[in-house]
Amino acid sequence: MPILLDPSKAPVLQRLLEETDTSGLTWSIEQGGAQVPAGEIRVAGIANLERAGPQEISFVANPRYQAQLAEAQAAAVLVTAEVAQAYRAMLAEAGRAGEALILIICNAPYLLFARIGQWFESQLHPLPAGGIHPSAVVAPDASVDPSAHVGPLAVIESGAAVGPRASIGAGCYVGPGCRIGADSVLHPRVTLYRGVSMGARCVILSGAVLGDDGFGFAPDPSRAKGAWTKIPQFGGVRLGDDVEVGANTTIDRGALDDTLIGNGVKIDNQIMIGHNCRIGDHTAMAACVGIAGSTTVGERCSIGGAAMIGGHLKIGDDVFISAATPVHSNIDKPGQYTGFFPMTEHAQWERNAVAVRHLATMAKRLKALEKK
Amino acid sequence: MPILLDPSKAPVLQRLLEETDTSGLTWSIEQGGAQVPAGEIRVAGIANLERAGPQEISFVANPRYQAQLAEAQAAAVLVTAEVAQAYRAMLAEAGRAGEALILIICNAPYLLFARIGQWFESQLHPLPAGGIHPSAVVAPDASVDPSAHVGPLAVIESGAAVGPRASIGAGCYVGPGCRIGADSVLHPRVTLYRGVSMGARCVILSGAVLGDDGFGFAPDPSRAKGAWTKIPQFGGVRLGDDVEVGANTTIDRGALDDTLIGNGVKIDNQIMIGHNCRIGDHTAMAACVGIAGSTTVGERCSIGGAAMIGGHLKIGDDVFISAATPVHSNIDKPGQYTGFFPMTEHAQWERNAVAVRHLATMAKRLKALEKK
Amino acid sequence: MPILLDPSKAPVLQRLLEETDTSGLTWSIEQGGAQVPAGEIRVAGIANLERAGPQEISFVANPRYQAQLAEAQAAAVLVTAEVAQAYRAMLAEAGRAGEALILIICNAPYLLFARIGQWFESQLHPLPAGGIHPSAVVAPDASVDPSAHVGPLAVIESGAAVGPRASIGAGCYVGPGCRIGADSVLHPRVTLYRGVSMGARCVILSGAVLGDDGFGFAPDPSRAKGAWTKIPQFGGVRLGDDVEVGANTTIDRGALDDTLIGNGVKIDNQIMIGHNCRIGDHTAMAACVGIAGSTTVGERCSIGGAAMIGGHLKIGDDVFISAATPVHSNIDKPGQYTGFFPMTEHAQWERNAVAVRHLATMAKRLKALEKK
Repeated sequence: MPILLDPSKAPVLQRLLEETDTSGLTWSIEQGGAQVPAGEIRVAGIANLERAGPQEISFVANPRYQAQLAEAQAAAVLVTAEVAQAYRAMLAEAGRAGEALILIICNAPYLLFARIGQWFESQLHPLPAGGIHPSAVVAPDASVDPSAHVGPLAVIESGAAVGPRASIGAGCYVGPGCRIGADSVLHPRVTLYRGVSMGARCVILSGAVLGDDGFGFAPDPSRAKGAWTKIPQFGGVRLGDDVEVGANTTIDRGALDDTLIGNGVKIDNQIMIGHNCRIGDHTAMAACVGIAGSTTVGERCSIGGAAMIGGHLKIGDDVFISAATPVHSNIDKPGQYTGFFPMTEHAQWERNAVAVRHLATMAKRLKALEKK
Repeated sequence: MPILLDPSKAPVLQRLLEETDTSGLTWSIEQGGAQVPAGEIRVAGIANLERAGPQEISFVANPRYQAQLAEAQAAAVLVTAEVAQAYRAMLAEAGRAGEALILIICNAPYLLFARIGQWFESQLHPLPAGGIHPSAVVAPDASVDPSAHVGPLAVIESGAAVGPRASIGAGCYVGPGCRIGADSVLHPRVTLYRGVSMGARCVILSGAVLGDDGFGFAPDPSRAKGAWTKIPQFGGVRLGDDVEVGANTTIDRGALDDTLIGNGVKIDNQIMIGHNCRIGDHTAMAACVGIAGSTTVGERCSIGGAAMIGGHLKIGDDVFISAATPVHSNIDKPGQYTGFFPMTEHAQWERNAVAVRHLATMAKRLKALEKK
Repeated sequence: MPILLDPSKAPVLQRLLEETDTSGLTWSIEQGGAQVPAGEIRVAGIANLERAGPQEISFVANPRYQAQLAEAQAAAVLVTAEVAQAYRAMLAEAGRAGEALILIICNAPYLLFARIGQWFESQLHPLPAGGIHPSAVVAPDASVDPSAHVGPLAVIESGAAVGPRASIGAGCYVGPGCRIGADSVLHPRVTLYRGVSMGARCVILSGAVLGDDGFGFAPDPSRAKGAWTKIPQFGGVRLGDDVEVGANTTIDRGALDDTLIGNGVKIDNQIMIGHNCRIGDHTAMAACVGIAGSTTVGERCSIGGAAMIGGHLKIGDDVFISAATPVHSNIDKPGQYTGFFPMTEHAQWERNAVAVRHLATMAKRLKALEKK
């Protein structure tokens, strides 16, 4: 595993849990029959249960997988109280009570596993110290907090403001008047056009472009048949707190008003969000999604990969769009929505595709038969 | 609204219209019952009709929306002669003739609105002055017009030529021998591979890549079962005048000949155009479109978002492809073409999808019933 | 044609073939009735048969096109023995034996054509000489082979290693601990996050991002209803030898293990490969493909453009997915698989789409009729 801390730096379990952010969580350590007291066992990494070794911590979030505990080798395993009970009963029945693994009983094992991962991440890849790399080009009237980091060959334009402990990666471009909140991180080679703002703890992955011109043109037949003229885009892009934007994703700035991304929204790679869209808090989108301009998506939605949502639509809260589904109408009721052609072997598809082309006729013919 | 000019810089209406590019347009100001003569009213911005305040100009392009005029607050409104007449009649009937807004009667209100927006854009975000930022790396034998701008940390390679008043954004890479026409603008972090050329007034958004290798490989079983060897791509990419290319879009260079993008073509974000494609004048494509290699698209086509066009096809002039539609055959007749599976609630889709898989059989069974 | 070498640098045919990599190939020159001995004819470029002039070499890979030979003007043509024989017979019958073109008889004409193209490419665009551009920012403890090239404004972080004759393009970011094998080439503006490794002779096109965070979040209701917390991504991305990665493509690093791309895999532009995917040797993917996390794709597969493959799936060897096809289930049998809605004129589609929404009901009604 690539994540093992050097044994000399591996914390004992008790300290690991004390230093992990466990806000909102309850946990307790159950030592079972382990030889080593939990306070002394060292944890050098995390792993999936079937691969975890005696220095790694793991988890069982789904009771379906609790049978795997019987053979597990992990230093300790995060489980719910229910799983812990079943595990004890199973060992007792098998006369193996003395072999019990150390369990960390928690109301949300997967969440605690994520938080423990964050602790390891902070050890392995601490954010760089504050300071501006000498090769960066920072406008004299830009404001960079002394605790913020600006990487090599980054550009920060006039009037931009970079907050405390924020980090601007190598080769980033931060346009005039941008606002980057505390603890937000731009990975290398991100573009923020003028006037983009984001709250605290946002993460923007490499190659993302925020605030580029929305796609707006007016027909201009005075120039040539079919010609277009540009409608300037005056709005901005505003991100709330805790937003993640994936690699090579693009978010257009608004035409007149801003494009808005709510708090806690998670946006994967290669997603395209058109101008004047509004995305509600905690909505998540998998890669390759496209959302055309002026569409509103509610809170806590899940948009599957490569789903495509048309423009000027309203999608309500708690809507789940399946992967590869095109959306061309409003959705006001929570639930899952789907629309893609089922895949088959090609020869079978060819036969069915012929029939699809004549479906309306088939429907009529069926009706005619029924009337006979 | 983010677009208001400082009142001290806001022009009076008469001057605004005189300084706006109104070529090909006819316009006249109708003061109606307005208290303030049109020559004196100051316009500090533009807005949609329902949001425009007394310092902002707006428009009614579609007679359907003319009823909104009754409540509008705008400094002045762009309308057609027909809408103006209806508005006057409406006010007269309501005994409100004295409240009439200032109207600008125009043969193409939306186009004039766009042009007025361009005037504000030129005030708010004038192109940078000519000159090369000291951090840029410009080959000694590259030719940069003195009136052109080269931003920080841009690279301009040997033999490239940058025309008058062109602007190369921060962090751009302009490869050997590229040609950038007058008044063309590369936003930050654009890549032009060697030999890419563009005409006048093109706009290339951040992250776009033009002239990367087309995807060409020959089977090379001499190396390994299933192995491929690269077919070098010797062509270039040529853009006409007035082309816009969106953020993170990619346009491959041709294998032997050039990939060609016609005059006035508008290409949104995250679009992929394969090698040796030819796109006709004034065609527009919404985001996430893909066009495979060697396909020709005619003039004045509209390609909806996420439509996918196969390789070696011919799409004629004035064709409209709906969003999310896959195109696998030539289209020689103007008109709209569509092909995507309609979205429903998931449970409904599941039932229908089962039937889709057996459609060819259903067609046979229907025929058999008809023969009874 | 843009590829003609200056006549003074054009090789004679014999030398061209000797200097081309013909490993695994057999070839012989047949002079036929040509006036100029093959040893003396100069070849200044390559072209398709119908466009090749007397200084250019061409090929006939498919016997279907051999009729074009009758009118061809090429300096020499690559053909199979079968095509050569048919050509001779055709000329003899027409009494034109004296006009025969020079033929290069080869067991794999298209492959040899590609290799000859590679020879011209090496002449026209030789890789830059070793050395580090003074504007690049290279960590003191990074290891750059003296024969490797590092372009202007590139960043190479701590502990990274760049192998012999490798080339790092302008504006690239190479993260801590990356490993770049011999003769691998990064085009301008590529991002490699920490810990990405690639073998020999890989080519990474502009704007590609390798090793960005996989999209992993755990529900965190302790923060807010519907909130998410990040699952840190500790894995890397490992590419074999001879991999090509297209422009603006993204490949996520693994959550705990690495994302793996096999030898000879060819990945086109704007492709998204999720974390922990494994792609088998010599598989090729056309542009705009998306593969969700933890999916395994076998060897020698072909994935058509804009196909979308769901997560946690297994696709076997030698599978061909058609363009625009969504894949939501495992595929364990070689063959072609397809699934997209066939395009029609829009009005026709509208009629058929209504019927699609009621397909399950139609199936029931058909069954009921059959029972009568």
